[in-house]
Amino acid sequence: MTATPATAAVLVIGDEVLSGRTRDTNSGHIAARLTEIGVDLKEVRVVADDEAAIVEALNALRARYAYVLTTGGIGPTHDDITADSVAKAFGVGIDHDPRAVAMLRERFADPADLNEGRLRMARIPFGADLIANPVSKAPGFRLENVFVMAGVPSIMAAMLDEITPLLAHGAPIRSETIRADAKEGDIATPLAAVQKAHPGVAIGSYPYMDAEGFNTNVVVRSRDADALAAAAADVRAMLAALR
Amino acid sequence: MTATPATAAVLVIGDEVLSGRTRDTNSGHIAARLTEIGVDLKEVRVVADDEAAIVEALNALRARYAYVLTTGGIGPTHDDITADSVAKAFGVGIDHDPRAVAMLRERFADPADLNEGRLRMARIPFGADLIANPVSKAPGFRLENVFVMAGVPSIMAAMLDEITPLLAHGAPIRSETIRADAKEGDIATPLAAVQKAHPGVAIGSYPYMDAEGFNTNVVVRSRDADALAAAAADVRAMLAALR
Repeated sequence: MTATPATAAVLVIGDEVLSGRTRDTNSGHIAARLTEIGVDLKEVRVVADDEAAIVEALNALRARYAYVLTTGGIGPTHDDITADSVAKAFGVGIDHDPRAVAMLRERFADPADLNEGRLRMARIPFGADLIANPVSKAPGFRLENVFVMAGVPSIMAAMLDEITPLLAHGAPIRSETIRADAKEGDIATPLAAVQKAHPGVAIGSYPYMDAEGFNTNVVVRSRDADALAAAAADVRAMLAALR
Repeated sequence: MTATPATAAVLVIGDEVLSGRTRDTNSGHIAARLTEIGVDLKEVRVVADDEAAIVEALNALRARYAYVLTTGGIGPTHDDITADSVAKAFGVGIDHDPRAVAMLRERFADPADLNEGRLRMARIPFGADLIANPVSKAPGFRLENVFVMAGVPSIMAAMLDEITPLLAHGAPIRSETIRADAKEGDIATPLAAVQKAHPGVAIGSYPYMDAEGFNTNVVVRSRDADALAAAAADVRAMLAALR
């Protein structure tokens, strides 16, 4: 008997993603990590740098899922409003945090460099724990079940490494990918029968095109290695029978 | 006086994105297109192949935005439940659509090839218009303000081309990207002043790292070409004064 796995959502904050100017790679990186440690990522949302939108999404997601991981909007410029929006969502105050100021001083030893803009990055909601930023020092933070991380992918990745030990580790979700060498429509009916015979396993079918034409990857997923192996064997037998 | 621009949301449907196995490129492609035609993309959500999750997200988004564009889950296999979920969200019936069956017959002339799985792709909610699929024939569909498209990127792109003329075309959102050759923290304070002087223009600051170290792109966005030019000139003058 395993405990119910923890659930999570990712909230990506940034006009640049919604304008199509920047492609979000952070949510895919987080998704892969959560799968490795057995946390169920249930939802990703992308919202603009807009206080009302951030507050509403954050409050919806943090009430529903065990963890919410945010990326973006914690830099030094006027359009970085994530920290203030998180404080508002939680109904707590926010101010320059002495621990965060100290971290910035490590990087900006000359007081002239630690200007008003950079000091904005030390604004942390009251009651939050800091998330270390080994790349550029300006920290992220955690408030209850919400983890607030940077948007620059290399910094986000470093912060994700910092918080990974803090998340509940469930049985990892194992998966096996089987290339069908068949069109999806030719395997749909027998594949549905395999799925029906293995209700505890999730079987997904992912069509793709390459130079050879249409093909399909069948992905079998489960936390139970034996159940996974049994279902994968049945998928392979089904495919062999079609040839 | 321009009309208020139309708003939109993208709903990406698929376990494979949430598991991190597949990186979603469709939402970025749609975002860029909507920006080109002057539609404001306000939100992107990614949910699992789960009927309750799809229905809830779809009903929330279609009530709030002028358009909802979905991708994924309209293939032939058991895990493709988008069409049925859309019908449920709208409270309408769903069945094999003769127009959709005719489209599939174009591709699968031999009745043996038009099997039960492939016929699933002709299940269309009552009252929907079809969206042609020039790549592999199985259509998407439109029901009121919801456009349901495939998840395979090449097919999604073709369907997006089909529906683009049906969307309201606003003044395109113009943008100009100015490389600061400065760290974000060194320009934050004067950049905020430029933003304050140009309230009708959105100025975003996007830090990045390359082999030279930290740098920043400043992106000025507006539907008004003159306002954009004036703000961009002020950003350039501000940056020049810092050197």
